Amino acid sequence: MTIGSFFMRVSRIVNNTPNLLLLCTLSGGGVVAYSELQSGVERPSIDANEPSKKKVVVLGTGWAATSFLKDLDASLYDIQVVSPRNYFAFTPLLPSVTCGTVEARSIVEPVRNIIKKRKGEVRFWEAECVKIDSANKKVFCRSNIENLVGSGEFSLNYDFLVVAVGSQVNTFNTPGVKENCHFLKDVEDAKKIRLSVIDCFEKAVLPSLSEEEQRSNLHFVVVGGGPTGVEFAAELHDYVQEDLIKLYPAVKDKVKISLIQSGDHILNMFDERISSFAETKFTRDGIEVQTGCRVVSVNDKEITMKVKSTGEVYSVPHGLIVWSTGISTLPVIRDFMEEIGQAKRHVLATDEWLRVKGCENVYAIGDCSTINQRKIMDDITTIFEAADKNKSGTLTIEEFQDVMDDIIVRYPQVEHFLKQKHLRDFTALWKDLRGNESKEIDIEAFKLALSNADAQVKSLPATAQVAAQQGTYLARCFNRMDQCDDNPEGPRRFRGSGRHKFLPFRYKHLGQFAPLGGEQAAAELPGDWVSIGHSTQWLWYSVYASKQVSWRTRVLVVSDWTRRFIFGRDSSRV
Amino acid sequence: MTIGSFFMRVSRIVNNTPNLLLLCTLSGGGVVAYSELQSGVERPSIDANEPSKKKVVVLGTGWAATSFLKDLDASLYDIQVVSPRNYFAFTPLLPSVTCGTVEARSIVEPVRNIIKKRKGEVRFWEAECVKIDSANKKVFCRSNIENLVGSGEFSLNYDFLVVAVGSQVNTFNTPGVKENCHFLKDVEDAKKIRLSVIDCFEKAVLPSLSEEEQRSNLHFVVVGGGPTGVEFAAELHDYVQEDLIKLYPAVKDKVKISLIQSGDHILNMFDERISSFAETKFTRDGIEVQTGCRVVSVNDKEITMKVKSTGEVYSVPHGLIVWSTGISTLPVIRDFMEEIGQAKRHVLATDEWLRVKGCENVYAIGDCSTINQRKIMDDITTIFEAADKNKSGTLTIEEFQDVMDDIIVRYPQVEHFLKQKHLRDFTALWKDLRGNESKEIDIEAFKLALSNADAQVKSLPATAQVAAQQGTYLARCFNRMDQCDDNPEGPRRFRGSGRHKFLPFRYKHLGQFAPLGGEQAAAELPGDWVSIGHSTQWLWYSVYASKQVSWRTRVLVVSDWTRRFIFGRDSSRV
Repeated sequence: MTIGSFFMRVSRIVNNTPNLLLLCTLSGGGVVAYSELQSGVERPSIDANEPSKKKVVVLGTGWAATSFLKDLDASLYDIQVVSPRNYFAFTPLLPSVTCGTVEARSIVEPVRNIIKKRKGEVRFWEAECVKIDSANKKVFCRSNIENLVGSGEFSLNYDFLVVAVGSQVNTFNTPGVKENCHFLKDVEDAKKIRLSVIDCFEKAVLPSLSEEEQRSNLHFVVVGGGPTGVEFAAELHDYVQEDLIKLYPAVKDKVKISLIQSGDHILNMFDERISSFAETKFTRDGIEVQTGCRVVSVNDKEITMKVKSTGEVYSVPHGLIVWSTGISTLPVIRDFMEEIGQAKRHVLATDEWLRVKGCENVYAIGDCSTINQRKIMDDITTIFEAADKNKSGTLTIEEFQDVMDDIIVRYPQVEHFLKQKHLRDFTALWKDLRGNESKEIDIEAFKLALSNADAQVKSLPATAQVAAQQGTYLARCFNRMDQCDDNPEGPRRFRGSGRHKFLPFRYKHLGQFAPLGGEQAAAELPGDWVSIGHSTQWLWYSVYASKQVSWRTRVLVVSDWTRRFIFGRDSSRV
Repeated sequence: MTIGSFFMRVSRIVNNTPNLLLLCTLSGGGVVAYSELQSGVERPSIDANEPSKKKVVVLGTGWAATSFLKDLDASLYDIQVVSPRNYFAFTPLLPSVTCGTVEARSIVEPVRNIIKKRKGEVRFWEAECVKIDSANKKVFCRSNIENLVGSGEFSLNYDFLVVAVGSQVNTFNTPGVKENCHFLKDVEDAKKIRLSVIDCFEKAVLPSLSEEEQRSNLHFVVVGGGPTGVEFAAELHDYVQEDLIKLYPAVKDKVKISLIQSGDHILNMFDERISSFAETKFTRDGIEVQTGCRVVSVNDKEITMKVKSTGEVYSVPHGLIVWSTGISTLPVIRDFMEEIGQAKRHVLATDEWLRVKGCENVYAIGDCSTINQRKIMDDITTIFEAADKNKSGTLTIEEFQDVMDDIIVRYPQVEHFLKQKHLRDFTALWKDLRGNESKEIDIEAFKLALSNADAQVKSLPATAQVAAQQGTYLARCFNRMDQCDDNPEGPRRFRGSGRHKFLPFRYKHLGQFAPLGGEQAAAELPGDWVSIGHSTQWLWYSVYASKQVSWRTRVLVVSDWTRRFIFGRDSSRV
């Protein structure tokens, strides 16, 4: 009774105290965690029809949607969230989940927990958006739960729609991929891979199998040499070497991991040093890296590839294939694009303020959309006219400097262009143009000066980092909607009058990791810094622990890592 | 680098040190765990054909099989284990898994980890035994992994077969149960229930549902008032009250849990005090206990019941049904029973040494079999003749006492009989028979003395405790097979000469728990002790933590409990 009531009291204190110091010391390593558990604030009652609040509907619970919801002042709007997954998943740890280094449950947080902590009322519906009707400001949704009573179909009206539904795997229409390959997009995928790896080993060791059949079942193929594919290959290699061969010693020499990449190098979005380090490490580890190879087709037994350089086509048997080659647009977004006149595009386009082009009050963030950066050369005449205040037909250096501040905000490619030309600022550009002569420039000289800037327009990668920053950016815009109506903070409108309401979205690249297995990782940090090795793995551990969405998942992820160090990974088929 | 190499060194030390003191302090509660991690002993190479070793095939990886394997001296035999599950599951915690109080992975341990620690070589095959051919001493097995190359069918020869395949759920042929009910027999079942509970809530809160539909989806029905059903109902009630209604406040008044029991009381295998405490507590908690009710049929929307006393038949809508009413024999055992002439029986019968009746060298332990205790009245004449050393036709008190020691070992019902008659020992029985006259007794008096003993024959319950004790008992017999050939330790053979090789199996009841929710539990301890309340729940925590099969699962289970106290249960649909 004493221990019981003591623990219950502790539990009660923990649940009611806003902040709590959690000290957990396990096997010599110490982790000090400062909890943000919230006090049990009573939530206001639902009042969906309050006239003053505009309706915001958010589609999705991934990185973009979740960071939007976390930063949004929920008291300003009537917010509804629709997603077929009732949880947020920390997707960068999915490769770890495939091998049980981290448990699936440790990287997910219920959306309802996240929205419960918001100041206002946020409602969540576990359903899939099947149609966006932007003409009538309506979305149509359908629940995927089928065995219970009640219609799962409903529609929601919105004043503002935030589309953050993400993407699907791109199979490039390769025959057999959908039926025979594993993907690594969500938690369910990772759990399936984990079970399948165990299946491959359990089947291979059965007494009825020939050595050739054993080798086939233990051939693990990873298609795609991007960060996800590489990390999965590395994780799998560690899992096999550190845990599985001890439990399946009879087949320890028959395991093979192949990494297939259509490009010339794996991790080709990273610095060349990282890419070649990864290739060398993988080759040394016995992971077969096949670059310049395209998958032609897949069936349940074999994968057929074509070597790009020689044109040779050959097939190899496989036990498991993980397909991780890129993303494509979801059907609901494809339909939406047709409706709003974007049918010819590959990806849903937004402007620099993340507003979907071709419709009103619809925003798109994360993997489902891409920012269509306006070209400066399309506006160059208008800009010149706006800059030429005295209508002299030429720009003085003052007029030039005056307009360049707004240009650099509106057209970020100009900044990249200056950097690339190693010019410190506009004055340097002016000097570059005119030498030391401080004469005025005409429109032709102005065009010439910026003519190559548009080559620096880059589309953003489909990463968690971009999605999260877009969500945060959009939330801040929503929070200051009224305020910025009166005091616009954006750059001047060249093709209209006044200023833009908000600053356009600007992505800040904070670096990128590529874990390579064996407690080594590579990182590309801002300012062209590259870091490779064991210490980088520890940097990875710290960054990923700190980026967790809640203290619950943080504690779980860290204890999973600790457990793995002590007990290894579990191989139960559960 | 320094932290990295420090941690790796710690990890290496941990993995190579036989014993390790693990101290983990989390939120004030302290757990001291003493690890049994073994040093990396090299395992001998496989040598299946070593002529001197007899082949033992074990079917199953449940309680019985695992405790057999843990206690068996594996160096004496060539051992092969066959089971469709490559892990042992701590089944008493399954109800906790359904609501996420404990994670599924925390209660499982890979069989390969367990057998790796044995001294000798034990081989494991993940396959299902589909046929036992005791005439040819062979078992036929089939792997359930279908999408990989190689035949999954094989057969194994045995010298000794240990059948420990467990049982399946008994639906009593009630229509619709298999299709529409959840069971709670293994880890997969528990995981499915967990997802389904979340589904019920997510569907119920959708804006398209009527209040009646909400109530239907949130009606949780538990069929069976045994320990599993009761514990599940209690866990679910706690989950709903402590976690779910905070996340789904809109439907908090629409949740209903019903517990249906065909008998007059729930927990009727327990002491009456426990049974009535449970009923009162459940009623107070709002769990509807319907006793004396039999389920007639089930469909996807409704469950139909018949009230035994009135004969009234009625249907109620449901969101989820968990069926937990008892066990029945697996098809492979049914076929085997037919082969060995046990076709008319309900359950596979063994003798008191756990040997399957009707065949040679086959043992059966755990839920798949029952001990057919020999009746003393069947042997009474033989016993009398054996006892009557001087062939006088009567027994002296010395002759009587002499034979009674063996009788009590061979026929344990006699001990229960003495206890029931409040007789301290045989002398008391003698006195009871003869008064104080110390005359000899004839066969009729001897028969009369023991005539009611056979009424005390009790079949053992299908619990983890019985299965584990049977496994341990059988392992000890196997370990001393040669030794006891020379020096038999069992009671004298009345129907033959000499002594039995081993003592027959005797079950020691160590008590039984019934967690009732709200941090309360009931326990029936040996000696008719009954304990109910919060302190019993803490006894339950201690016992269940100590009974874990490995230190890994022990640490995981305790940290799951701790996590639940701090963060509550997770409601992500993962």
